[in-house]
Amino acid sequence: MRRDEVKTPALILDLDALDKNIELMAIQCAEFGVALRPHAKSHKSAEIARRLIAAGALGASCATIAEAEALAAAGIPGLLITSPMSTNYMLERVSRLLLRRAEIILVADDFRNIHALAAIASKSDQPLRVCVELDVGLGRTGCPDIDDAVGLAQHIRAQASLKFVGLQAYWGHLQQLMPFEERQRQVSQGIERVRAAVSALRAAALEPDIITGGGTGTHWLDVQSNVFTEIQPGSFLFLDSCYQPIPLTPNGNPFLPSLFVAAGVVTANRPDRVIVNAGLKAFATDSGKPVPVHGVPPGAVYRFMGDEHGAVEFEKSSFLPGLGSTIELLTSHCDPTVNLHTRYIVVRRDEVVDEWPILARGY
Amino acid sequence: MRRDEVKTPALILDLDALDKNIELMAIQCAEFGVALRPHAKSHKSAEIARRLIAAGALGASCATIAEAEALAAAGIPGLLITSPMSTNYMLERVSRLLLRRAEIILVADDFRNIHALAAIASKSDQPLRVCVELDVGLGRTGCPDIDDAVGLAQHIRAQASLKFVGLQAYWGHLQQLMPFEERQRQVSQGIERVRAAVSALRAAALEPDIITGGGTGTHWLDVQSNVFTEIQPGSFLFLDSCYQPIPLTPNGNPFLPSLFVAAGVVTANRPDRVIVNAGLKAFATDSGKPVPVHGVPPGAVYRFMGDEHGAVEFEKSSFLPGLGSTIELLTSHCDPTVNLHTRYIVVRRDEVVDEWPILARGY
Repeated sequence: MRRDEVKTPALILDLDALDKNIELMAIQCAEFGVALRPHAKSHKSAEIARRLIAAGALGASCATIAEAEALAAAGIPGLLITSPMSTNYMLERVSRLLLRRAEIILVADDFRNIHALAAIASKSDQPLRVCVELDVGLGRTGCPDIDDAVGLAQHIRAQASLKFVGLQAYWGHLQQLMPFEERQRQVSQGIERVRAAVSALRAAALEPDIITGGGTGTHWLDVQSNVFTEIQPGSFLFLDSCYQPIPLTPNGNPFLPSLFVAAGVVTANRPDRVIVNAGLKAFATDSGKPVPVHGVPPGAVYRFMGDEHGAVEFEKSSFLPGLGSTIELLTSHCDPTVNLHTRYIVVRRDEVVDEWPILARGY
Repeated sequence: MRRDEVKTPALILDLDALDKNIELMAIQCAEFGVALRPHAKSHKSAEIARRLIAAGALGASCATIAEAEALAAAGIPGLLITSPMSTNYMLERVSRLLLRRAEIILVADDFRNIHALAAIASKSDQPLRVCVELDVGLGRTGCPDIDDAVGLAQHIRAQASLKFVGLQAYWGHLQQLMPFEERQRQVSQGIERVRAAVSALRAAALEPDIITGGGTGTHWLDVQSNVFTEIQPGSFLFLDSCYQPIPLTPNGNPFLPSLFVAAGVVTANRPDRVIVNAGLKAFATDSGKPVPVHGVPPGAVYRFMGDEHGAVEFEKSSFLPGLGSTIELLTSHCDPTVNLHTRYIVVRRDEVVDEWPILARGY
């Protein structure tokens, strides 16, 4: 099937661009001796996780227990669940994964959670590996203070069924900070805080094997920090319209856009716009609008028009996309856009070459 | 199971509030002799469609062919697909529904589409019923002008395999217009335009059996317009946080909030906030933020913090929700929020009484 004949709406993944992005990130990590455990919250795909591992990744980071379950079932090793597993339901599911001998690492930020983790891990014949999370300014999960983090690590060490393995420090709030120099300045401050935490852990005879964090927007700084043992970026795979205009290195942005939504023209009865069958349920809306890139006049812009529609607007003098024709749009925020679709339609140039399911969608 | 023990994140549907909302809308329509074909893009549920039909609804409106397929498979009659079916893939799927003798009505806004519809309908032994859509200011689908609409209706009549059945006119752009008086003024203008279209159709000997449109925000005006034979509201079922503060009648808003997301507290290590496991993938983000309503200190506010997390923030002096406890949030835009979940957890007061699947999610 040709790319412009796909059944719309469809999530299009350009395999050449994806492979190039994977290669670029793998080279960047290898150069500085930092491991890569890319975040599966972005891709939710066993096939992409396998490609990353083939390029040298340690495994996959996961935001939810459902992502970890899906990737474990697909045989993906080295799963780090980057959010605390604090509710009874999460703990039940972690327990089931342990009994299936899934290779997982958890993060924790609370003494009470350590007791719960120790209880479920005691039913397993392998120690459960746990990182302490330190908040580094995001204000989300993580211990607020270094002392808390060290105390928590000591508490993990004291549990026979748990194994303290390291530290997580994630600056999500800095990923798209502009200009680049300001991102660099704030990441440097964050790195000093991580170093201080590592020193405090060592002073308590707690050597972290893993120091994990980082993302697409800060990866260039993260790998050169000489503090992270691994990083967990995800969006570099797709380079959505949020990341595309942002320099990811001092020399710009080496990654390529690979993720598009193909939409069909359902109404074409005005000279300055067509209506396509992709709206609030086909695109994430938290970070701006998708950008029409294929099958449209130059300068076309997209406007959300309800659950299942958008307007693609352009100058009256331009060519009018035909009724029923296919338009492609660069997605805005990739992670929640991927989550809206059931599968990737994988293309090389103008040909559809594969179809990959999107896992662990919805609740 | 108790409501506060659900597996989070979960979409909670309060059945008493839902039933009350259905009853209120059914009474309002019956009083003015207007039929009800509620929009399934909001609920995506065969169970809710059946409850609406039990309360007197004609059937269900659908935004996509996938919604129509799912409801037809569940035996729901009277399906109106409110968007033009213009792409080859849509036409194939309509054709399959016709061959299964599904009871569907389509809308059209383009001559070229009429030819395509006539071709697929000619393979069926029943005429395909088609409404002409008139744009009434939304600028999305629909014929821009009344003359176009009449010409299109004549063209439908000329096709042996098609049956012209009426007119669709939808003012989506007026649904949440404030103040109420301005909404009323603009709806009155819209109604005059619909009347003019109906007159023009009659002058061409095209009597519309169906005049459909309207929504939750304008339903009180729509039913009293003496022009619509039926209306297609959806959000009244749930009364999300977009509609809740908006008067839907001159005397305020008779509907009750029925849709919530239950989220679990995953981090509780600061005095002024907790972190819950519901973020950009659990809530729509196009129309503001969810509102914490149960299990939180008074005045708590929600802030999005990534794909799978949000902060619930409050005054330091308040009680702190416990680690692993459940918080409920009133959803913002209901339709795209429902689409993110796989099922409704149906509750009466504090007890879970049922679980209903959400159909036709994703592409």
